[in-house]
Amino acid sequence: MSVTAAEGFVAAGVHAGIRRAGPDLALVRSTVPSVGAAVWTTNRVLAAPVVVSKRHLERVEPQAVVINAGVANAATGATGVADAERTAAEVGHALGLVPEQVVVLSTGVIGVPLPLDRVLSGVREASAALDTEGGGEAAAAILTTDRWPKQAQAAGDGFVVGGMAKGAGMIHPRLATMLAVVTTDYQLEPGEPIAFLREAADASFNRISVDGECSTNDAVVLLANGASGIGRTPASDERFAAALGEVCAALAREIVSDGEGSTVLLEIGVSGAASDAEAEAVARRIATSPLVKTAAFGRDPNWGRVLAAAGSAPWNGGFANVDAERLTVSFDGVCVFVRGEPTGATPSLGGTSVAIDLDLGLGAGRASYLASDLTYDYVKLNAEYTT
Amino acid sequence: MSVTAAEGFVAAGVHAGIRRAGPDLALVRSTVPSVGAAVWTTNRVLAAPVVVSKRHLERVEPQAVVINAGVANAATGATGVADAERTAAEVGHALGLVPEQVVVLSTGVIGVPLPLDRVLSGVREASAALDTEGGGEAAAAILTTDRWPKQAQAAGDGFVVGGMAKGAGMIHPRLATMLAVVTTDYQLEPGEPIAFLREAADASFNRISVDGECSTNDAVVLLANGASGIGRTPASDERFAAALGEVCAALAREIVSDGEGSTVLLEIGVSGAASDAEAEAVARRIATSPLVKTAAFGRDPNWGRVLAAAGSAPWNGGFANVDAERLTVSFDGVCVFVRGEPTGATPSLGGTSVAIDLDLGLGAGRASYLASDLTYDYVKLNAEYTT
Repeated sequence: MSVTAAEGFVAAGVHAGIRRAGPDLALVRSTVPSVGAAVWTTNRVLAAPVVVSKRHLERVEPQAVVINAGVANAATGATGVADAERTAAEVGHALGLVPEQVVVLSTGVIGVPLPLDRVLSGVREASAALDTEGGGEAAAAILTTDRWPKQAQAAGDGFVVGGMAKGAGMIHPRLATMLAVVTTDYQLEPGEPIAFLREAADASFNRISVDGECSTNDAVVLLANGASGIGRTPASDERFAAALGEVCAALAREIVSDGEGSTVLLEIGVSGAASDAEAEAVARRIATSPLVKTAAFGRDPNWGRVLAAAGSAPWNGGFANVDAERLTVSFDGVCVFVRGEPTGATPSLGGTSVAIDLDLGLGAGRASYLASDLTYDYVKLNAEYTT
Repeated sequence: MSVTAAEGFVAAGVHAGIRRAGPDLALVRSTVPSVGAAVWTTNRVLAAPVVVSKRHLERVEPQAVVINAGVANAATGATGVADAERTAAEVGHALGLVPEQVVVLSTGVIGVPLPLDRVLSGVREASAALDTEGGGEAAAAILTTDRWPKQAQAAGDGFVVGGMAKGAGMIHPRLATMLAVVTTDYQLEPGEPIAFLREAADASFNRISVDGECSTNDAVVLLANGASGIGRTPASDERFAAALGEVCAALAREIVSDGEGSTVLLEIGVSGAASDAEAEAVARRIATSPLVKTAAFGRDPNWGRVLAAAGSAPWNGGFANVDAERLTVSFDGVCVFVRGEPTGATPSLGGTSVAIDLDLGLGAGRASYLASDLTYDYVKLNAEYTT
């Protein structure tokens, strides 16, 4: 169940002293040449490590990922970029790689400079500790305010995909945010990983919402080293895509389940939309609606709020096509609104998840989304700690 | 300070019994022929009174507005439309108007049928009680969970603009939502009110956010009856537009100040954007960011969250243009981030309002926005009352 599950990957997690206690620096490497890709936050304000790592990935194939927790190295100006470069160089030096083969990620407080000396000494310590059993330590070292480490793994026919992630835990006022590293011993050629990763990320990390925020540091990195040695066929490619999708979906689900203050997982399904993209817009709007999310916290099958959210889903400069006369809504399988008319049913919501399904009755478009609820603890975690 | 401040307007507020206690039905009319217009929610799911009133306004000029609180008459199917028509007909019968001269508005619980008999008997009672002193009662009768009535007034050179509103108080799980009625004795010709109203509403009601929700019932109605008798000039038109803007802005500010659970008013200013529309997109994103709003509740000058929100403002299918290297941010006038670099300043936020100003350094576009904070009480109000 870890980022070292696939052949030829080693990892370590150490306490570099970036934060007071606990592991705060993780290193993952392939022991043989690998290829890779990453998908990044689309925020216009990018953290320094994102700027640096994007540049690295444009030049050479990656073979190692270094992640520090505690300081996001975002909004740190020119110094921040130099610090991220220096970190990559130190990893390269320790592992015998060129700096551009190193992906640098940071998560933590925005606007605070990286404590560079501690990071560099942490890099040296982690380099010496790299081990095939180090996945768990690495997964622990990237957490910030997550309640538990997030790891996942899937086996194909002779290959393995493993991964770790940290979630949207923003207890500290300026924390940023979601990171994931996925490794595989399946063989991919240079240039191939990005398409596989995009497809898997679109169906997983891009379909979750804790609070609708988009951080300066979000990243998902994939490394593939071919160490499984199995031959490739179109069928094995499909199995790899499925395994990668499974790992990303499992990590994404963990992130939402561990959403700040979350008590219930909302599984939102939209079908019958004019297009898949419009279905996604409607699902996202419901997933980010404060009124739907507070109702979920209160275990209230509040279809009125679901209707109001669905009817105001931003789409193409206006709102997505929704027609109440054609709309059907159910909670946990119980229909509450059928083509414009309330049914009078009142589903009882008691568990740790609730399924909200909408059939827009307009076409064949469909999408699903996972979301957390909006609770006292979310407000507490994000309001209580003042700078 | 009321909807009856202008010459030739009368109003009343009565207890029709739609809810258990308190006034719940308001009626406003012009005693002489008037012209008018309305701006409506853009939600795709429209309440029955919105559907009916839009139709009425397309046919004739309005002379009366009837509003019930307690039941939104939204998502009520064909019965809901018939009930709204019947309400307008009853007002017309009582006041000697054709039904199409009556604008019908409802606010309250979604998905519950209007208690028609009570509404109709309330209409008869309110019609008999119409008075030039009735503005205060009318303003009280449209409230749902607002903490106070919202009224405003501005005098021009020989004319008056007065108005009332109810805010986004959604204590009950399916409540919907913002309504305003503005009256004036300034003289406008048929077809003229809409342009004045759109301009005033865009700069006021469309620049506020409590929780980013857009209800099925939102409406702002303007009635103008010319009873002031003053002559019109281009200069007086400007004065009228200014007075109308002032009244709308005052009502909008009241609505945000009374936002659910709100403890602080966020006054967000964005300048230096590539265009006014992009400035508005950035301001709106900040105004609806749960992280910015919880930080405000904690009185935390959290510029990291402001940066992250600004960098992810939906615009034109992507994000609005923001470049950290050109961006300057201040809290209550204290610069915390200047063109890509943190200043190290930590403003102290203690009051009941906080000014967050961004200069994007890209162009001449500017916009402002008002928002409430996100608090325990917001969650409580919206989660606690289960159906």
